[in-house]
Amino acid sequence: MRFTCKRMDAFSASPICIFDPADCIELGVKDNERVRLVAERGEITVIAQSSEHFVERGIVLLPDKVVKRLGVKDGDPVDAYFSPAPESVRAIRKKMDNEKLEGAEIDAIVKDIYAGRLSHIEISSWLTSLYINGMDLDEIAEFTKAMVNTGDRVPFDKGPIFDFHSIGGVPGNKITPIVVSIVAAAGLLIPKTSSRAISSACGTSDFVETFCDINVSADRLKEIGESVGGAFVWGGSMNLAPVDDIVIRIEHPLGINPRPQMLASILSKKLAINANYLLVDIPTGAGTKVPTIDVARSYARDFMDLGEKIGMHIECAITYADQPVGSAIGPNLEARECIRILEGEQHPASVIEKACECAGILLEMGGFQNGVEKAHEILKSGKAHKKFMEIVVAQGGRADLKSSDLEPGKYSADILSTKSGYVHSIKNKDLVSIAKACGAPTDKGAGMLLLKKKGQRVEVGDVLFTLYADNEAKLQRAKDMAERYSPVVIEGMLIKRVAAPQVR
Amino acid sequence: MRFTCKRMDAFSASPICIFDPADCIELGVKDNERVRLVAERGEITVIAQSSEHFVERGIVLLPDKVVKRLGVKDGDPVDAYFSPAPESVRAIRKKMDNEKLEGAEIDAIVKDIYAGRLSHIEISSWLTSLYINGMDLDEIAEFTKAMVNTGDRVPFDKGPIFDFHSIGGVPGNKITPIVVSIVAAAGLLIPKTSSRAISSACGTSDFVETFCDINVSADRLKEIGESVGGAFVWGGSMNLAPVDDIVIRIEHPLGINPRPQMLASILSKKLAINANYLLVDIPTGAGTKVPTIDVARSYARDFMDLGEKIGMHIECAITYADQPVGSAIGPNLEARECIRILEGEQHPASVIEKACECAGILLEMGGFQNGVEKAHEILKSGKAHKKFMEIVVAQGGRADLKSSDLEPGKYSADILSTKSGYVHSIKNKDLVSIAKACGAPTDKGAGMLLLKKKGQRVEVGDVLFTLYADNEAKLQRAKDMAERYSPVVIEGMLIKRVAAPQVR
Repeated sequence: MRFTCKRMDAFSASPICIFDPADCIELGVKDNERVRLVAERGEITVIAQSSEHFVERGIVLLPDKVVKRLGVKDGDPVDAYFSPAPESVRAIRKKMDNEKLEGAEIDAIVKDIYAGRLSHIEISSWLTSLYINGMDLDEIAEFTKAMVNTGDRVPFDKGPIFDFHSIGGVPGNKITPIVVSIVAAAGLLIPKTSSRAISSACGTSDFVETFCDINVSADRLKEIGESVGGAFVWGGSMNLAPVDDIVIRIEHPLGINPRPQMLASILSKKLAINANYLLVDIPTGAGTKVPTIDVARSYARDFMDLGEKIGMHIECAITYADQPVGSAIGPNLEARECIRILEGEQHPASVIEKACECAGILLEMGGFQNGVEKAHEILKSGKAHKKFMEIVVAQGGRADLKSSDLEPGKYSADILSTKSGYVHSIKNKDLVSIAKACGAPTDKGAGMLLLKKKGQRVEVGDVLFTLYADNEAKLQRAKDMAERYSPVVIEGMLIKRVAAPQVR
Repeated sequence: MRFTCKRMDAFSASPICIFDPADCIELGVKDNERVRLVAERGEITVIAQSSEHFVERGIVLLPDKVVKRLGVKDGDPVDAYFSPAPESVRAIRKKMDNEKLEGAEIDAIVKDIYAGRLSHIEISSWLTSLYINGMDLDEIAEFTKAMVNTGDRVPFDKGPIFDFHSIGGVPGNKITPIVVSIVAAAGLLIPKTSSRAISSACGTSDFVETFCDINVSADRLKEIGESVGGAFVWGGSMNLAPVDDIVIRIEHPLGINPRPQMLASILSKKLAINANYLLVDIPTGAGTKVPTIDVARSYARDFMDLGEKIGMHIECAITYADQPVGSAIGPNLEARECIRILEGEQHPASVIEKACECAGILLEMGGFQNGVEKAHEILKSGKAHKKFMEIVVAQGGRADLKSSDLEPGKYSADILSTKSGYVHSIKNKDLVSIAKACGAPTDKGAGMLLLKKKGQRVEVGDVLFTLYADNEAKLQRAKDMAERYSPVVIEGMLIKRVAAPQVR
């Protein structure tokens, strides 16, 4: 059937098209089934939807992505045909039935997700099946390669290439610019790509963009890396394993990140920049993705075995994550704490220690002796700060950038302790929810400063943490949450009094 | 934030609302997260989507369903607030983690699906988790009750109420009007509700609507049942466990029907009409939902045990389903074959036999002796036809209805055998795909007549089956499929010749 194209901008996340219901019946296609669209300069299979109001008969409404792929403009003709479910739907069923998938099947699923031939319903089922039934390492290696194949590669002329990745889950983990600056200052090439927050309050890219440009093309990343030696850009601005972005949009509402998907996502982005040496930070502690050392060890084992299968030397650092790293959570606050340390500030020790431990391992992978010592030395000497400023300028930041340029939101509220005792534990997830309620990571001034950490003595009325927001209503909402959640748990020396049951 | 309402008709299947992206940022809500909409006369939580083109800032675009719930019209004000994920998302996670759910958790999931508080992504994950991890009988009983609670009940004043349900999977299963007519002619009350095709070529409602009205309110079903004794209406026209309709739209593209969902769906509709006695037909055979007698037995056990838990007397009939029941597949063709039998035609025997076996069990549940004999007697005597016509008329059909009124589509094609031998097997699923390609169940004349069945002798050039369509292009597509699939498998007496490997 022939239709006339009309462009829309909505729902551009998933390649769909919208017909009048009568046209759907004539095409023999139901909502969420597929049609093949064929125009003069391109063709694509998309998910069909029907609507009585947006389109008239004979018109097909197309989102930007589809318009581009077809090479059409408003008023151009396009032919539409019913298209049966692709083979990849069968492969998803196979994983639902807990069977091992072949490389070709995994490749088909990944390609079809990327091309928009699978609907949100099908992708959700795929991710749920992966979460429940998992994959073995052969499957994950195939999965990783399939993901790389959906995007570009960055062909560095220099090498070897070092890389660093934290699997996340611990709030306030602002170490990346410090690690990159130290490692690059030592002369190693570390063109690091980072992500934005998925479920956290602030990803590396969310705070780095407060002081320089993170939107950098693959070619520009190559230039910066080869001239300056390091970078901290947003992976999403390049076309590296781009299928990941589609998957994340489905994982997010489900609150899951299936292990095979997580491993393949991370390694595909590293494979796309041809990383030779990779350090993976595995934050471990209550309330994070990795609650115990045993789980962390099994992740580490998977990473290293997968590295062997895909030809990458991988080491892992299991790091402490029972509470936030440092004090600051939120874009400007984290950027300020991070830059202060590069400027020479000795506090918070937890940030400096973690950054130097990680940089140290990378330095040793690069042939240096006593890596951690060397990392501390580079940081103290000011060489890391000098390299940091070179990278900032290469990424379009100001040459006179100071930590004091970064200001927290103008609305703030102190959250006080209602009892005296010691900080027994800190609930990471609740802190994240509260920081998000403040407006992080979208509102750059939003977040919190944690003033009391585990083991510290607290008196009634002491400030436990201070909330910041760019907007008064959000501050109020976050304050209400903070009072309801009590994320900083205080206990006296007496943990629990056990008394005999009273006689009625 | 306050918005102005604007009605749309699209995507009415899922309660969503569409904002300008800048409004989404201001609301602090991402695509697929939830907002609570509060108007003067109602409130509802829906899934938020953003669009640059359909709406301007300050406008919220609402589908019909949401407009109704809010009691608003175009131009009315509505307040919108970010709404966190409901507790039911946690319960879905629990099922993903293979934990047993409490009644209250199941109830929350069912209510939230019905109210549109869960997105397609979340419902898909729920169904996939159910498919993989299943439920125990306590959970399924709670699930059944929760589904009933989403809709109305039909309060019959007479009783006991008899009911009949086929779990489907075998093409051409047009026995329902015959079973109902026989049972009602014997004086038992059998107000049967049926469904339309989900993945099959023709559901009971799809062919019954060719000769009478199937859209009947709950009150009217009560009237018809109490006056005539029987009915064969569309369950979808009443508000019985309506959450099922939402679920089916997600199951369909995934091609799954998780066992707990199937059991709860069926029994909730029976519980909603307060059925006291239920016969469940379990078609069993290669290429159906229930491939073996062992699987059928385990379904039967589940049905009967669940019946005890919900206070319903349930028996099961495990029936032969290696090939279609009778010859006709498709709306008009099945209606014609069904009415011919009621008119006295002795063919096809498989339809008559299955209808009388099922009616016979119901008669025995109702206290009659030798039920099957009695059923044949009622059918032969013409009493079943008389009762059938009473029901047809009560459902708005013509009093002079004849089987010959129902005509197949005007385009037809014979599919011939390319070899001689015996019909070894018939591929049900392929026949269904071909009948759907003809246009069934939407095009009423579409479908096929199967002329050769298992065990019959076939010569080269014999007609295996005849395709019918209302549309020439669909006929051609179906013909191509039929030739590609060869759904009727012919073999000679020699099954396979085993020779020694040739020497190279």
